[in-house]
Amino acid sequence: MTSIAGTSGPARAADPPVITLTTDFGLRDGYVAAMKGVILSMCRDARIVDVTHEIAPQSVPAAVFVTSTVWPFFPPDAIHVCVVDPGVGTERRALLLVTDRGRFIGPDNGVLSAALPEAVRGAAPAGGGPVHLPDGFRAYSIENRAFLRAEVSRTFHGRDIFAPAAAHLALGAAPERFGPRVGAMVALPPFRARPDATGALRGRVIHIDRFGNLITDVRGEDLPRGEIAVTVAGRTIRGLSPTFAAAEGLLAFVGSYGYLAIAVRNGNAARELDADVGTPVTVTARTPGNATG
Amino acid sequence: MTSIAGTSGPARAADPPVITLTTDFGLRDGYVAAMKGVILSMCRDARIVDVTHEIAPQSVPAAVFVTSTVWPFFPPDAIHVCVVDPGVGTERRALLLVTDRGRFIGPDNGVLSAALPEAVRGAAPAGGGPVHLPDGFRAYSIENRAFLRAEVSRTFHGRDIFAPAAAHLALGAAPERFGPRVGAMVALPPFRARPDATGALRGRVIHIDRFGNLITDVRGEDLPRGEIAVTVAGRTIRGLSPTFAAAEGLLAFVGSYGYLAIAVRNGNAARELDADVGTPVTVTARTPGNATG
Amino acid sequence: MTSIAGTSGPARAADPPVITLTTDFGLRDGYVAAMKGVILSMCRDARIVDVTHEIAPQSVPAAVFVTSTVWPFFPPDAIHVCVVDPGVGTERRALLLVTDRGRFIGPDNGVLSAALPEAVRGAAPAGGGPVHLPDGFRAYSIENRAFLRAEVSRTFHGRDIFAPAAAHLALGAAPERFGPRVGAMVALPPFRARPDATGALRGRVIHIDRFGNLITDVRGEDLPRGEIAVTVAGRTIRGLSPTFAAAEGLLAFVGSYGYLAIAVRNGNAARELDADVGTPVTVTARTPGNATG
Repeated sequence: MTSIAGTSGPARAADPPVITLTTDFGLRDGYVAAMKGVILSMCRDARIVDVTHEIAPQSVPAAVFVTSTVWPFFPPDAIHVCVVDPGVGTERRALLLVTDRGRFIGPDNGVLSAALPEAVRGAAPAGGGPVHLPDGFRAYSIENRAFLRAEVSRTFHGRDIFAPAAAHLALGAAPERFGPRVGAMVALPPFRARPDATGALRGRVIHIDRFGNLITDVRGEDLPRGEIAVTVAGRTIRGLSPTFAAAEGLLAFVGSYGYLAIAVRNGNAARELDADVGTPVTVTARTPGNATG
Repeated sequence: MTSIAGTSGPARAADPPVITLTTDFGLRDGYVAAMKGVILSMCRDARIVDVTHEIAPQSVPAAVFVTSTVWPFFPPDAIHVCVVDPGVGTERRALLLVTDRGRFIGPDNGVLSAALPEAVRGAAPAGGGPVHLPDGFRAYSIENRAFLRAEVSRTFHGRDIFAPAAAHLALGAAPERFGPRVGAMVALPPFRARPDATGALRGRVIHIDRFGNLITDVRGEDLPRGEIAVTVAGRTIRGLSPTFAAAEGLLAFVGSYGYLAIAVRNGNAARELDADVGTPVTVTARTPGNATG
Repeated sequence: MTSIAGTSGPARAADPPVITLTTDFGLRDGYVAAMKGVILSMCRDARIVDVTHEIAPQSVPAAVFVTSTVWPFFPPDAIHVCVVDPGVGTERRALLLVTDRGRFIGPDNGVLSAALPEAVRGAAPAGGGPVHLPDGFRAYSIENRAFLRAEVSRTFHGRDIFAPAAAHLALGAAPERFGPRVGAMVALPPFRARPDATGALRGRVIHIDRFGNLITDVRGEDLPRGEIAVTVAGRTIRGLSPTFAAAEGLLAFVGSYGYLAIAVRNGNAARELDADVGTPVTVTARTPGNATG
């Protein structure tokens, strides 16, 4: 009782199912609530948790980033539904992915990438594409109409396909009953800035959080040893700060996600730097000769 | 287990109660959480689901539209609370409406209209007004002070009247104990554009969703046969698109609600057209002679 | 069954735990969901309720105001987590406060002030500071690493300290096991405008709600007897309105919180008056001589 369960250990048989929802539907409309109604109509005991419904509209990469910061903290028997689906109504598959760290449901457009190991995602082309699934990962194309709503609309698969599939899974339906097993699924490559010929890490902003902090694709573990210099939007930051509270003005730190982040103490870095998702970020080892700016 | 329960079938006796909340309170303040605290203080096992708290302030029609897209997807024993209440503190009734499709609690100002059949709503005047309840619909004026908080404020009936009433109902209190049965309640007429003398459907925008899509009061089933032309904000759209993904630019389609919707692929129709709730929309059968614009 | 439990009475042993969350994390990121994942990984049966995640970034007073309007409506065994934490990563304590009205977890920076009696908060200096805890209030410095996540980040104590502490408490861990008992904690003084030498109440706006209503620190019970005049942003309001619905234009009323509030019927007072948190508000007894403006 005094050890934190975290993501380890199997759930007890009697545990109520946990279902998380991540969408770009927002909360002004009834879309999310309709999905919850479908789930609760079938599985009254489900614990439904909103990850966020504020994903930038139709932005698959943003959904991958946010879910990558959330899914690892859920129990391994959780069911994670992610519906960011610019191709709804086209022939893209509806996917069920079964892993030891959770079960994942969504369109086969890369939005479930955070469920895959980085090495697997590394095989995907720059804009995303099919990758072969490794041992321990099983994917199914959701096609069994008995697991969908009787009437499937062309525009709202969250309610008509993904929510009922999650509820059936929560009720104990075996994954292979949902449809044919598939050996590959669409993935995005990992967020990870690579060094150029000079050794400088060339990255970009991948997310802006509520505080206006810029989250970059530079990994803390990839940073050069010793003092570093971070250049973004024409400004240079020297050295890492251990915490928000340890510096004034513009600062760089390795955030809780393990990514290099750029912040303004008691301010909004995105606004002050006029930076956005995609803004380039360069990290170099700081040497006396380049300590300018 | 493989059939979707949807809205059919009675709930089992042991099912925990489901209570949904729809308000215009927003999520910046503590209003919604105070309601949840009152409910959970009385009925710890309630499954409380937020429909939305982003209804435009004091907009009863917007609440009716959004709830009409959500309530049908919940179990028939769910309790739906809707508090959009410009007349709070006046003499308007607090209402409990019991139907085969759910139980509904809110002020008697039309906000529960989505619980009524269209034919019944059709008897309401244009701006809303009392309608007689048909067989199978029972309404009660919530007046029994034993079912309210001990101290009822003048400005926050969501916390002091509607939340405790919902909790008492969830705990099994019989509807007739809440107060006198009433034979009529306030309703809004249905959202349904009517044809003019030339046969053109004259409608309006009734909702703008998170994507900037314009939802209109033109029903898919009322559309003229064959090709149509949709005119809105000085622009004309020819023909329906089967899905978002099937067209470029400005397009019209019948959305998951069954209403004609107007969207811009990968864009925001409300902004691009400078359209708002209330903007007129006209749909005509497309003939060669009027294929201009 | 017909009496409202409200905040009185002990919870039954079998009741599932209730945990509320109040943060400034917003809902665009995964921060809040990660906290919920940690809690549900340890305590699947927890009822997690969002108070709000829209506290103005790093605004401890705003968190105190909002939680003061919510916490009293929850059951007395509820666990309230509040993470507004500008000093995260510094040496400020992580605190567990045990009272007869709830258990409270958060940084020791004043953010738990709403759990303290006003008389106790009255001992705090204007900007907040340590106060001695009275009988019936026990506080502990959360230091037992067995109750934290195995790896504690420097920037996200909500996930790594406060969420697992709440889950352990929900599972029944005794408060004294979390760390050493402390006799004082940081508190903010109460929101309560004081009269000046002339008897006028000199207050300020402490919160702006979703409707643009200005909530002030003038208590309804402190208002002068008879007619009053409220001056704010260069405008004077004469008399109190009993409800929103009872007046036109600019009006003052005692809101559901017991504070004087200023509203514009069918409008937004904050925008119309160009008022903000901190805007001065003066209330005087209205006498014929000063009935101008």
